[in-house]
Amino acid sequence: MITRDDALVLDRADPLASYRDHFVIPDDSVVYLDGNSLGRTPHATVERVTRVMEHEWAGDLIQSWDHWVHLPVQIGDRLAPLIGAQAGEVAVHDSTTVNLYQAVQAAIALQPDRRVIAVDAHDFPTDRYVVDGIAARTGHEVRHGFDRLDDVAVVLRSLVDYRTAEVADIVAETARADAAGAITIWDLSHAAGVLAVDLGAAGVRLAVGCTYKFLNGGPGAPAFSYVRRDLQAILPQPIWGWWAQADMFAMGATFTPQPDIRRVLLGTASVLSLVAAEEGIALSAEAGIDAIHHKAVQLTRFGLDLCDQFGLRTSTPRDDHRRGGHVAVHHPDARHLVPAMAAEGVITDFREPDIVRIGCSPLTTRFTDVYDGIARVAAMAG
Amino acid sequence: MITRDDALVLDRADPLASYRDHFVIPDDSVVYLDGNSLGRTPHATVERVTRVMEHEWAGDLIQSWDHWVHLPVQIGDRLAPLIGAQAGEVAVHDSTTVNLYQAVQAAIALQPDRRVIAVDAHDFPTDRYVVDGIAARTGHEVRHGFDRLDDVAVVLRSLVDYRTAEVADIVAETARADAAGAITIWDLSHAAGVLAVDLGAAGVRLAVGCTYKFLNGGPGAPAFSYVRRDLQAILPQPIWGWWAQADMFAMGATFTPQPDIRRVLLGTASVLSLVAAEEGIALSAEAGIDAIHHKAVQLTRFGLDLCDQFGLRTSTPRDDHRRGGHVAVHHPDARHLVPAMAAEGVITDFREPDIVRIGCSPLTTRFTDVYDGIARVAAMAG
Repeated sequence: MITRDDALVLDRADPLASYRDHFVIPDDSVVYLDGNSLGRTPHATVERVTRVMEHEWAGDLIQSWDHWVHLPVQIGDRLAPLIGAQAGEVAVHDSTTVNLYQAVQAAIALQPDRRVIAVDAHDFPTDRYVVDGIAARTGHEVRHGFDRLDDVAVVLRSLVDYRTAEVADIVAETARADAAGAITIWDLSHAAGVLAVDLGAAGVRLAVGCTYKFLNGGPGAPAFSYVRRDLQAILPQPIWGWWAQADMFAMGATFTPQPDIRRVLLGTASVLSLVAAEEGIALSAEAGIDAIHHKAVQLTRFGLDLCDQFGLRTSTPRDDHRRGGHVAVHHPDARHLVPAMAAEGVITDFREPDIVRIGCSPLTTRFTDVYDGIARVAAMAG
Repeated sequence: MITRDDALVLDRADPLASYRDHFVIPDDSVVYLDGNSLGRTPHATVERVTRVMEHEWAGDLIQSWDHWVHLPVQIGDRLAPLIGAQAGEVAVHDSTTVNLYQAVQAAIALQPDRRVIAVDAHDFPTDRYVVDGIAARTGHEVRHGFDRLDDVAVVLRSLVDYRTAEVADIVAETARADAAGAITIWDLSHAAGVLAVDLGAAGVRLAVGCTYKFLNGGPGAPAFSYVRRDLQAILPQPIWGWWAQADMFAMGATFTPQPDIRRVLLGTASVLSLVAAEEGIALSAEAGIDAIHHKAVQLTRFGLDLCDQFGLRTSTPRDDHRRGGHVAVHHPDARHLVPAMAAEGVITDFREPDIVRIGCSPLTTRFTDVYDGIARVAAMAG
């Protein structure tokens, strides 16, 4: 029988426990289990954004662009080790939607003889709609699922299932698609900052992801694009943005894109959102992705054990190697349980059709939070 | 003979003079004449962004999305009267590059029988590169200039020339393109917040623009899209973003775009940058675009008079109705004059090949700034 005291013991032994002090937490009694949707606010972010507004924007004015111009790649370099990328392989910019659009268009342009885009029929809408929109214009066939890869130009898939937290086998699945002649684009939105992803070891060519979940980058923070170095100089770009131009301030007559990761950039970088994202990413980098991943495994395993104890059904994998940073608890009344719990200070989220998601964000989530959240689901579910 | 005392008299008589107090100005001796590239920092922005970080993000956490989700259209509604749009016709989102890409793709999809996109060969690179990129994929012909409009699907043009500040005749030119069967997309980047644009009266169907110049929205602040109401339900979208989905949180199997301005939205809204933009826009709305435009005309006329007095060559129109919010001073050594003046606290900007731009941003620029700036150009130019 697991008790709340067991959770307290685990919290006391947690080597990452002190990271919670790096975040603005006005009410410590709130049980926040939605850091997988919107990560919490680092103190450093409030300080940085304020400093940028008061000193760099108001004080140094236009001259700040001399260093702001480097933010997308500079922040990409800080993010790179968290996903197994090299410096110069990641840029932080725009949104997951726009970045996916670019990546899919680039990949199909590299594979002109293939007519199929493969996507999971149950993936997050961002991915499905972008693919459907591209296919509607180009005439590509959208194939749901990844079993058959014949004639597939592009495989777009999420590393972590946003409902169940199931983790795909990135090494095996990338290799299988490669062998079938398809380019895989990995969507790391639900993986970045919680799993020790190793894009380099998996031979991944293209990936995108978001920074406002486990990376604590702020609401609607810019997303990222990963392009393996050997592809950067040849990557076709559907949107020719002046920030990708080789000598952007020369304002030349013709578009000559950068041969490096700046090739994915589009319009003027959104400075306030970018510096906020940088502080969130920096905290994760400081803590180290292996330590973060290890705690995520412990938190979610604790959550699964509690589901078993309280008789709650879960679809989240038991295998520690196949589980992301949340636990999916199924209940027929989930749609009403989630707001009812929120009214009592236990914040989770609802996903169709019957899922209460228990998000475990290792830098801020305590074992006691997981205990309190799942115990509350059990109590309210009756 | 105009003297600095004349400038002081004009400043004392300026009904908008007190607006300068609404901005963070750490060093009042800096002569800032680049508000047309990066507007200054409203005090309200620092307060709002800090409040959003500390209370809405850190405090209310995920629940803040209940109101944040409305930001793109809510801020669009505040911007609408500044450009002669109705509520529900403007959304603030993404970047000028992305929004132009969407608008051009939408317009050519509405005109499937026409094969030409017309753009100014000397327009800002953002516009030219986006058009070149689309044409490279679709096979459209890019025609430079607007004299001949046969077979033109889309006219993309800037309302204010970023070099000379010349203002196009939006009413006549929109009507001429309409008569020729072309859709005009107006780029208002150098017009919004300084000219009393009236998109409604001009019968404009599509427009885009930026908020970080005269609207003081912050570095890299989100751009905007304007879609005339009658087009919204039929606008084709090249990028199918989940924020344009009719019932986005239902996460349905198929993309069913909103029939209203939300149709242009793409990914998750960038909250920190959006609320910053809102405060800048709100200040301009409070001051009123007619008063702002009137002061811009006075400031730039004063600048032209000073050019004449100091024997400086300018390409900026003398006609008060054909002039935007800056004065272009030509000098063969402009490339070196601009940084040399900046080192002495007179901030202008350089544009190829020989232009010193004197930006007049009516809420913060004083007549004395214009005097000091142009007198300094004259003194340094020898």
